[in-house]
Amino acid sequence: MAITIEQLNAADGAEALRLLDGLYEHSPWIAEAALALRPFRSLSHLKQAMAGIVREAGIDPQLALIRAHPELAGKAMVAKTLTSESTSEQSRAGLTACTPEEFARIQQLNADYNARFGFPFILAVRGPRGTGLTRQQIIETFARRLENHPEFERAEALRNIHRIVELRLNDKFGVEPTLGNLVWDWHESLAQHSDPGYAEKGQLTVTYLTPAHRAAAQQIAGTMRECGFDEVGIDAVGNVVGRYAPARPHPGPSPGGEGERYLLTGSHYDTVRNGGKYDGRLGIFAPMVCVRELARAGRRLPFGIEVVGFAEEEGQRYKATFLGSGALTGHFDPRWLDQKDAQGISMREAMREAGLPASLEAIAALKRDPTRYLGFVEVHIEQGPVLNELDLPLGVVTSINGGVRYQCEVNGMASHAGTTPMDRRRDAAVAVAELALFVEQRAARDGDSVGTIGILEVPNGSINVVPGRCVFTLDLRAPQDAQRDRLVADVLAKLQEICERRGLRFSAEETMRAAAAPSAPAWQARWESAVQSLGLPVYRMPSGAGHDAMKLHEVMPQAMLFVRGQNAGISHNPLESSTNDDIELGVQAFRHLLDRLAEETP
Amino acid sequence: MAITIEQLNAADGAEALRLLDGLYEHSPWIAEAALALRPFRSLSHLKQAMAGIVREAGIDPQLALIRAHPELAGKAMVAKTLTSESTSEQSRAGLTACTPEEFARIQQLNADYNARFGFPFILAVRGPRGTGLTRQQIIETFARRLENHPEFERAEALRNIHRIVELRLNDKFGVEPTLGNLVWDWHESLAQHSDPGYAEKGQLTVTYLTPAHRAAAQQIAGTMRECGFDEVGIDAVGNVVGRYAPARPHPGPSPGGEGERYLLTGSHYDTVRNGGKYDGRLGIFAPMVCVRELARAGRRLPFGIEVVGFAEEEGQRYKATFLGSGALTGHFDPRWLDQKDAQGISMREAMREAGLPASLEAIAALKRDPTRYLGFVEVHIEQGPVLNELDLPLGVVTSINGGVRYQCEVNGMASHAGTTPMDRRRDAAVAVAELALFVEQRAARDGDSVGTIGILEVPNGSINVVPGRCVFTLDLRAPQDAQRDRLVADVLAKLQEICERRGLRFSAEETMRAAAAPSAPAWQARWESAVQSLGLPVYRMPSGAGHDAMKLHEVMPQAMLFVRGQNAGISHNPLESSTNDDIELGVQAFRHLLDRLAEETP
Repeated sequence: MAITIEQLNAADGAEALRLLDGLYEHSPWIAEAALALRPFRSLSHLKQAMAGIVREAGIDPQLALIRAHPELAGKAMVAKTLTSESTSEQSRAGLTACTPEEFARIQQLNADYNARFGFPFILAVRGPRGTGLTRQQIIETFARRLENHPEFERAEALRNIHRIVELRLNDKFGVEPTLGNLVWDWHESLAQHSDPGYAEKGQLTVTYLTPAHRAAAQQIAGTMRECGFDEVGIDAVGNVVGRYAPARPHPGPSPGGEGERYLLTGSHYDTVRNGGKYDGRLGIFAPMVCVRELARAGRRLPFGIEVVGFAEEEGQRYKATFLGSGALTGHFDPRWLDQKDAQGISMREAMREAGLPASLEAIAALKRDPTRYLGFVEVHIEQGPVLNELDLPLGVVTSINGGVRYQCEVNGMASHAGTTPMDRRRDAAVAVAELALFVEQRAARDGDSVGTIGILEVPNGSINVVPGRCVFTLDLRAPQDAQRDRLVADVLAKLQEICERRGLRFSAEETMRAAAAPSAPAWQARWESAVQSLGLPVYRMPSGAGHDAMKLHEVMPQAMLFVRGQNAGISHNPLESSTNDDIELGVQAFRHLLDRLAEETP
Repeated sequence: MAITIEQLNAADGAEALRLLDGLYEHSPWIAEAALALRPFRSLSHLKQAMAGIVREAGIDPQLALIRAHPELAGKAMVAKTLTSESTSEQSRAGLTACTPEEFARIQQLNADYNARFGFPFILAVRGPRGTGLTRQQIIETFARRLENHPEFERAEALRNIHRIVELRLNDKFGVEPTLGNLVWDWHESLAQHSDPGYAEKGQLTVTYLTPAHRAAAQQIAGTMRECGFDEVGIDAVGNVVGRYAPARPHPGPSPGGEGERYLLTGSHYDTVRNGGKYDGRLGIFAPMVCVRELARAGRRLPFGIEVVGFAEEEGQRYKATFLGSGALTGHFDPRWLDQKDAQGISMREAMREAGLPASLEAIAALKRDPTRYLGFVEVHIEQGPVLNELDLPLGVVTSINGGVRYQCEVNGMASHAGTTPMDRRRDAAVAVAELALFVEQRAARDGDSVGTIGILEVPNGSINVVPGRCVFTLDLRAPQDAQRDRLVADVLAKLQEICERRGLRFSAEETMRAAAAPSAPAWQARWESAVQSLGLPVYRMPSGAGHDAMKLHEVMPQAMLFVRGQNAGISHNPLESSTNDDIELGVQAFRHLLDRLAEETP
């Protein structure tokens, strides 16, 4: 019999403990401490409460909890050490049918892992979808995590324990994140389209207007139609646009009246090279599944919903980021059409090849009239480690950080590494090293600024030559433009001071400058209310990454919702990952926002 | 009428001043101060003395001296500003026949240079050979020096003034560095052979057993024959070997008797890619011209002279440095024959193509019996800035530094530059930056150790990705092995400490370890005596670079002599340069060494 949250809230102490029995391996103190926090507003609230108790408990109880778990077992070890739940979970993952090589490999990994960290390897083997990782995935994860920093790995073990408990709680409460599962599966399915050279290696790369990109657009459009959108099309720059009409006085298809307004939402479906499955796409699928639920219920809202899968955000094939959302705000740069990709194919040719009109008139016609829209909201995977580290599934974005990028070069004098005394060198690389440490310290001083030297190279460097030249990039961001500008000024002043002192020359060319995009207060409040309604704490955070919402910000109010990423929130990487449960929460938050907006709209 | 040094030493004050009139532009104080140091043991002594007076005079008199010189002039400006000597020197360089474009360019350079440094551009337009630079060379040098650090450029201006004075003194004293000129010209001539891909661009690249390399060997062998060597040949690894027999009881060609001993000397004739003309080759040509002088005088010494042009030292085409000298010490690694170059051609194939036997037996037969040799000496261009900075033409090597090289990698976690807060990063590049600053400070602490990170790269770095990986090299050297080992231990300990603190992993693979090769005291003393006999101060210095002498060190006593390089001693670079006068001094030092050795030999 499934438990309900009301039942748990109402149960007396011993009964409540019994209801939560077996969640955390041999550690009933967590459930005990959690029950003191009743009543719970939702199952998510209970999950949060328990994770919080473990997070605040200190290192010794955490290590005891981790050590109470059995080692990851191959076939031969199962009987000895596993509790029945663990056994059945590991069995579902196929670990009871290891080959002898796999068994030996797991044994070796167990030994190495224990030697390195002093506790057993914990993995939620049912994985992000809850249906089980393959043996291959388990072994790869094991090997990868063996390389983690010990502190990080302790936290990662606890996160895996929380995920195991989450799945056990779902079972106990008879809860299935059905919309999360559906959306998770949509991501998997869409990820089957990948550009040549990457697809063969199992890597996901979808760049502007390649065959994989066009197939992805078709698939999104097809799913939109299945969801029950009223109009679905691919526009002149390749954006997939689905519109779900508002409630109308006389039901049935009819052209939108003058007074009809829409909520605009969406994100991009292109990817970086060898990227992740969720970056962008989650922001298309989450509202799509909301429309699906509305359509299945035969329900219309007082406003329409326009979901856009933006064709281009990442600037991979052409140097034209935010091309998709930029077309909606009238910021498509006509010169882009003549840009060529690495194969020499111009954007104009690529558009024609894709069956698009490749005409500036058609593109200009995509510009939206802001008065026809309520605003823009975007759901996005965090692409950062913060929510993951704080055990929070959702975060409300306060501002998209403003950023500036520079392409820099320091020139000194190349000389013989053996014959040039230390006090007679003009080493370009050591100067950049000095700057790198300054950037790190200066950005950290602000707390919420970030500064990165992402490209760093001594061109044609030799082991025995003092670097005469060093090229590098600067990426400096902050939640407010003024704060970012102070950071930039300090970094450039330091570069100048270093080069003068060391007798070097430098150049720094600004290649990008983006204004910060603070969330519209009313829209941020709607996301906060949605998160609260799920029984989750409201966590406000800036977005360090740029998003399509930055472009829409120029013409209408906007606000974003972040969904936690697994694996320290890694993104632009195949390890980017999200769980069915977190996606479900993102979808439910979106549904709450729609409901609240419906209540607000006359 | 030419002056003699004896005449100058004997002249009274006014007469002596008159003899030295017009050397330093409008700055008779330098000659005055120099004359107080009489008697001079040689013209070189006088040159040294005057340069020393300027070097010690302090900044203001130096600037006054520089400013007393006219600007470099194109045609239209000549009449106004130049003294008659300057005019005739600039005229010889063809500057009175500038095109209008060249004239405009020089005017612009003069303006830019004056604005940057506050003094006029001074260039010894008669150049390193004394016969004049081309207009093209002058303009290139001008543009290059405009980029120098102001302090360095002030010193470079003074060095050019000293060179102008040197040429004026040579004229006054009727001295022509004829052997220096001959050897300088040999370098020019040999530099006409260069590998395909470089020859077209006017770059010098001679790698092991290429057609250019074989042509260079033939040319050296031909010159040896012209010099009067008794036996000249190319051995099984491509070394060019010339032997000049000792005095024998019965004159005429005869097989060397059991008791005959040879002085071994030489250096390498291969080059790095886009290298300099003097690196290695000076050590072949300097003794060759000495033998030429002996042969022209019909003179034999009590010992023979064996000059070897080593075929390979730089390890460019194959990873087999010191192959040429290594063959003489029995250190030819048999596995080298199977090594392949970038085109997949094995060394064995390359040898056969070059007409060499490519047999290990033939190579093994090259091993020298140390009892048949007195020792090994090597003349080499310094390849460093020290002699150039101290206005010294020659330096006596105390030890060839021991070195260790590492190929290193730091691994952190690549993450989004915008979304990863500063305190949650595992930035591999910032860790290497921290190490780079430590290496700089730690090596400087020793005074004579050097440490270099020559290769530094974030592989596949992106402007907006926190570096997850950084590859770099370490090159650490010191005059004593123990000192070097302490340096290495400190650097590796620091690397470990940094990585532990920052939660990173690292690897450091040792790729080279060379023991220090201290000079044999008796041989070092012979070089010191030779330098002294030229009226020059003895300056002792370690060799930061490795040399063929390091290999011979393993089987016989050795000592090296350094000749100053121009352009801050730059080497492995087309700007590597030496003057006819400095080469003359190197040759004369070698002749002194031979004479002294002849006196010592029973």
